[in-house]
Amino acid sequence: MIKKYIFGAPIETEAVITTIPECKDIPEAGIISLDNGFSWTYTMADDDIVYGLGEANRGINKRGYIYVNNCNDEPLHTEDLESLYAAHNFIVLSGRRNMGLFFDYPAKITFDIGYSYQDTLTVCCEGSDLTLYIIDGTSALDVIRQFRKIIGRSYIPPKFAFGFGQSRWGYKTEKDFKDVVEGYRSRHIPLDMVYMDIDYMEDYKDFTVNPQNFPDFEAFVKDMKASKIHLVPIIDAGVKIEDGYSIYEEGKAGGYFCKREDGSDFAATVWPGRTHFPDVLNTEARQWFGSKYKVLTDAGIDGFWNDMNEPAIFYSDEGMDDLQAFLKDFAAMDPEEIPQFLLNDKVNGIKNSPRDYAAFYHDMDGIKVRHDKVHNLYGYYMTRAAGEAFDRICPGRRVLMFSRSSYIGMHRYGGVWTGDNKSWWSHLLLNIKMMPSLNMCGFLYTGADLGGFSGNTTRDLLLRWLAFGVFTPLMRDHSALGTREQECYRFERPEDFRHVISVRYRLIPYLYSEFMKAALNDDLYFKPLAFAYPDDPMATSIEDQLILGNEVMVTPVYTQNAPGRYVYLLEEMLFVKFMPDGSIFSEIMAAGHHYIQVALNEVPLFVRKGHCIPLAAPAETVDAIDTRNLELLGYEGATYTLYDDDGVSKDYDLAGHYKTYAK
Amino acid sequence: MIKKYIFGAPIETEAVITTIPECKDIPEAGIISLDNGFSWTYTMADDDIVYGLGEANRGINKRGYIYVNNCNDEPLHTEDLESLYAAHNFIVLSGRRNMGLFFDYPAKITFDIGYSYQDTLTVCCEGSDLTLYIIDGTSALDVIRQFRKIIGRSYIPPKFAFGFGQSRWGYKTEKDFKDVVEGYRSRHIPLDMVYMDIDYMEDYKDFTVNPQNFPDFEAFVKDMKASKIHLVPIIDAGVKIEDGYSIYEEGKAGGYFCKREDGSDFAATVWPGRTHFPDVLNTEARQWFGSKYKVLTDAGIDGFWNDMNEPAIFYSDEGMDDLQAFLKDFAAMDPEEIPQFLLNDKVNGIKNSPRDYAAFYHDMDGIKVRHDKVHNLYGYYMTRAAGEAFDRICPGRRVLMFSRSSYIGMHRYGGVWTGDNKSWWSHLLLNIKMMPSLNMCGFLYTGADLGGFSGNTTRDLLLRWLAFGVFTPLMRDHSALGTREQECYRFERPEDFRHVISVRYRLIPYLYSEFMKAALNDDLYFKPLAFAYPDDPMATSIEDQLILGNEVMVTPVYTQNAPGRYVYLLEEMLFVKFMPDGSIFSEIMAAGHHYIQVALNEVPLFVRKGHCIPLAAPAETVDAIDTRNLELLGYEGATYTLYDDDGVSKDYDLAGHYKTYAK
Repeated sequence: MIKKYIFGAPIETEAVITTIPECKDIPEAGIISLDNGFSWTYTMADDDIVYGLGEANRGINKRGYIYVNNCNDEPLHTEDLESLYAAHNFIVLSGRRNMGLFFDYPAKITFDIGYSYQDTLTVCCEGSDLTLYIIDGTSALDVIRQFRKIIGRSYIPPKFAFGFGQSRWGYKTEKDFKDVVEGYRSRHIPLDMVYMDIDYMEDYKDFTVNPQNFPDFEAFVKDMKASKIHLVPIIDAGVKIEDGYSIYEEGKAGGYFCKREDGSDFAATVWPGRTHFPDVLNTEARQWFGSKYKVLTDAGIDGFWNDMNEPAIFYSDEGMDDLQAFLKDFAAMDPEEIPQFLLNDKVNGIKNSPRDYAAFYHDMDGIKVRHDKVHNLYGYYMTRAAGEAFDRICPGRRVLMFSRSSYIGMHRYGGVWTGDNKSWWSHLLLNIKMMPSLNMCGFLYTGADLGGFSGNTTRDLLLRWLAFGVFTPLMRDHSALGTREQECYRFERPEDFRHVISVRYRLIPYLYSEFMKAALNDDLYFKPLAFAYPDDPMATSIEDQLILGNEVMVTPVYTQNAPGRYVYLLEEMLFVKFMPDGSIFSEIMAAGHHYIQVALNEVPLFVRKGHCIPLAAPAETVDAIDTRNLELLGYEGATYTLYDDDGVSKDYDLAGHYKTYAK
Repeated sequence: MIKKYIFGAPIETEAVITTIPECKDIPEAGIISLDNGFSWTYTMADDDIVYGLGEANRGINKRGYIYVNNCNDEPLHTEDLESLYAAHNFIVLSGRRNMGLFFDYPAKITFDIGYSYQDTLTVCCEGSDLTLYIIDGTSALDVIRQFRKIIGRSYIPPKFAFGFGQSRWGYKTEKDFKDVVEGYRSRHIPLDMVYMDIDYMEDYKDFTVNPQNFPDFEAFVKDMKASKIHLVPIIDAGVKIEDGYSIYEEGKAGGYFCKREDGSDFAATVWPGRTHFPDVLNTEARQWFGSKYKVLTDAGIDGFWNDMNEPAIFYSDEGMDDLQAFLKDFAAMDPEEIPQFLLNDKVNGIKNSPRDYAAFYHDMDGIKVRHDKVHNLYGYYMTRAAGEAFDRICPGRRVLMFSRSSYIGMHRYGGVWTGDNKSWWSHLLLNIKMMPSLNMCGFLYTGADLGGFSGNTTRDLLLRWLAFGVFTPLMRDHSALGTREQECYRFERPEDFRHVISVRYRLIPYLYSEFMKAALNDDLYFKPLAFAYPDDPMATSIEDQLILGNEVMVTPVYTQNAPGRYVYLLEEMLFVKFMPDGSIFSEIMAAGHHYIQVALNEVPLFVRKGHCIPLAAPAETVDAIDTRNLELLGYEGATYTLYDDDGVSKDYDLAGHYKTYAK
């Protein structure tokens, strides 16, 4: 049961694509105030759980903190960080009552979930123009499925995107990429993708390739394809201001860039230097920007990642003017009178400044809207630009696409990665906790930078993280410039890495099948334990075990120097470990609490009672997986219905894609 | 068996106070290189554990990361931070061989413990003048006890310091302090100390009290004492440069400050503005600085905390000169050519800069030593200044003293708190893990800022943290200016806080007794589980359960929204929960893995099999604890030998302080 309430005159975000009649009553749940912006306040029972918020910080149960959805390029994801890159304004209360709320409001919005007072949930925003959807259901999962239905089917990537990918900010030349491929292939560590971070471009200009480093890019892409490697370039939001650069010239001529109040193009410095932001909220500009991806698809590229699309701003023209004026005064001050903390505030404050976000405007098909009023839509619409363009450029074929910034609605056009995490054990745990929440909000093709993006990883952290990454749809090792090199072959005993990643490839038929079922049925790929066992009070508090699809429970080890971990089984299950010698250890475990031993080079999973999963022979690329010869792992007598297709076409709903196997 | 190796001509740190003959052999363990500074490299077996490093980041087992002991005022204790405030250069290898190594080297030193290669331990430093102690023993604990013996008896605080203390950066006036006391007393939440952070001073000048805010400080201290409250002021390292300020004038006249190479007094800006650093490495200057504490002890003060003694530097005169020159150029640059990242580096780089630490000198009783060569001794010697002075000012009586920065040797003069942590759940866990490591290095009177210093705490975090703080010798709630107020009475249901802190007071006879035994016998107050059960391989991997003294196992809950936690029992134990109604729940639990339920307002502990602990009736101050009427909690037939004394005198070794009770 979904009720839609409209307050004021909301901006149409197209997050929800189902027509729902407006409900004119006052919502009976919670207390709404329109005195000062908008707020909704609700008193939680002690054991109410609050799910949702998608890519947000902290736990699966969001209780006990405050979250500010205001897309933010802040790479220091400490546990007190309130804003990440996304704004997924959907929460689900579970307990006395199972109720979902989607606040379709594209500016900054705050969720105080028992932070100020342990029993009080308050959602508030400065504006009072929004659409609120309240969904009642029989369970949290039922609420989520209803929500997923009204926001439309989740993005489906090509099958190769379920392979393993290597990335690093700093690969520059053909040779850099070839060395990575050679590093993997020579050690028989599976690999399907190498990601191209900003250095492949010419001066960081979107839709260009550095001609010195890639004298014949098309031939290089073809070469790589022959080695079964997909190159996946990054696209940033800002378009470099440079006379003669065609994208800049076209955008300027077409009036496609975001503008200052006076109508001039707003300029902000990011990686390429001064840039303009394409006004992706304008249909014509969006079509124009999307069409540019063709430059690269024509060269053979079939996957992209969209970055810096909060949009991130190092500084605006105005911000730097002000800072320089301040610094000029500061430089002339008597050292004894210096306001040092103000200096820090000023210098650090020019980045992603609210003042800048209030200084430019979109032309939303005739309506001039100040950016900060729709800030959380930018990444969504940039990715939508690409998604809509792919339908024109290569209709009927899937293109890999995921984005850093997002809003609900974008889940129809691409996946997300969880942004610039760190080489921290706590971020491995955060990765685990984020996955089901993202799924709830429609984002199924997701994953974190395995091993951690910034900071220096360690061999054991990377191995443990990969052993979880085996299960995330997006499985990518990515790291930042200046950090320790973390390609798998850089470490001692690369055979351990080969083994862990090989397990991924053995599981791909199953993982892909469960991903597709989740996507096609508006369901979850990763579920919290409590969704599978709603009657168990202990299950609701366990956030480090996930149910994957219908058959598997994932229990990663995420503690350094730990030989294993505790697991809670709500029913008998088959404990499986993929051993480094290629064998499979399995053992029936009774319901209850257990400590499982898992070595660094082993991959654990549980098969749920009465179920089985298909398993392929090891392969080095997705292409090479023999899906016609699958063994079944699990309980005797169990059956499994496998979804499979060619991995590229969009004829998802054919009955012929399903085949049932019996063990 | 302790062997002492001398390389080059080490500076005498007086960390070790036992005379040990020099061993002229080459150490047979590990490989020493003197090619480029000093390094010691050792190949670890897979299951070797590395304990030690005292106040260092990460786990009890230090394997898998790199640690740089270089006392550092960096408040962002993320898990990749290599340097904290202390330098405790003692590690213990446990496994095939039980071996301790103390690198008595007072400059920056690096411990790569399986970071570069998982099996390789490398300790290295730039200089090659150091003393290395290698200790072989029958167990890790045996090694540690041998080490503790040669570094001398740990500091013992007055008994009142085992009470609960409230602190906050920002209390300014008599009224602020009275309000805190009233906040606690009116709700009957126990309290013995209120800490005075920097705002009690006049313009942050050491050994002054703001005369407007405290018109009669002595009377105020007396008033507070009458309410059974000890005021504990902070003392910072830097002495404000201000004509007419007596401490400054005396220091200048006496030549007691650290000097630039040219002999002028080195000036660095910290809280008071421009300051000089007392040259505490010089005996005369140290005596002078220590004698100043008398200004406050004469006013009735009987406890202090020494801060900013890494020493922290906001910027030096030279650093700001350079920065201003850079900023002047920067302000004049063409905005399109601006090196923004360099700006950030320059602005952030003036703080605690290595260049500044190499720009001033100590007069070590006639020997001129550049500060960076002895950097890690500064906090130690500042605290030693106070400790030596207290022996003159109030001989035979204990004074509360703990410090932020430290080196081994300082443990004889004061405790430490773990510095500027955050209101993070991960810092509650870090607090747990740090405690035994600190004990190994001689620091027994220790604790973290409960609830977290910076960042905003939540009610549940504070309650869970207090429930661990119940067991740490230093139990203090402290928070930073500008954060959410976190005195216990600020939150809903203050009776929960009253209850948790009351448990502390019921346990003080036991905690004090075990603390004294640890101090008097060079033993550990907190031990890793593996030290109590050395034959159990599982025990070595458990870092979130601690053995306290000889009778108790502590198992704090440190996960938000968790109703309890897993515990591993190596033998049958009595599980105890102090319930909010004042009753005590207890239940015998068998050896093995268990999940224990612990509500937010309960305090759990385990009594080891065959043991019992004394328990007092609840009290609101340490003074009010009735130590003559103790009940015994634990196993029937068990006995407990209680240490008790007047809490102030130093006649620790009297046999009369011990009394045995039988249950």
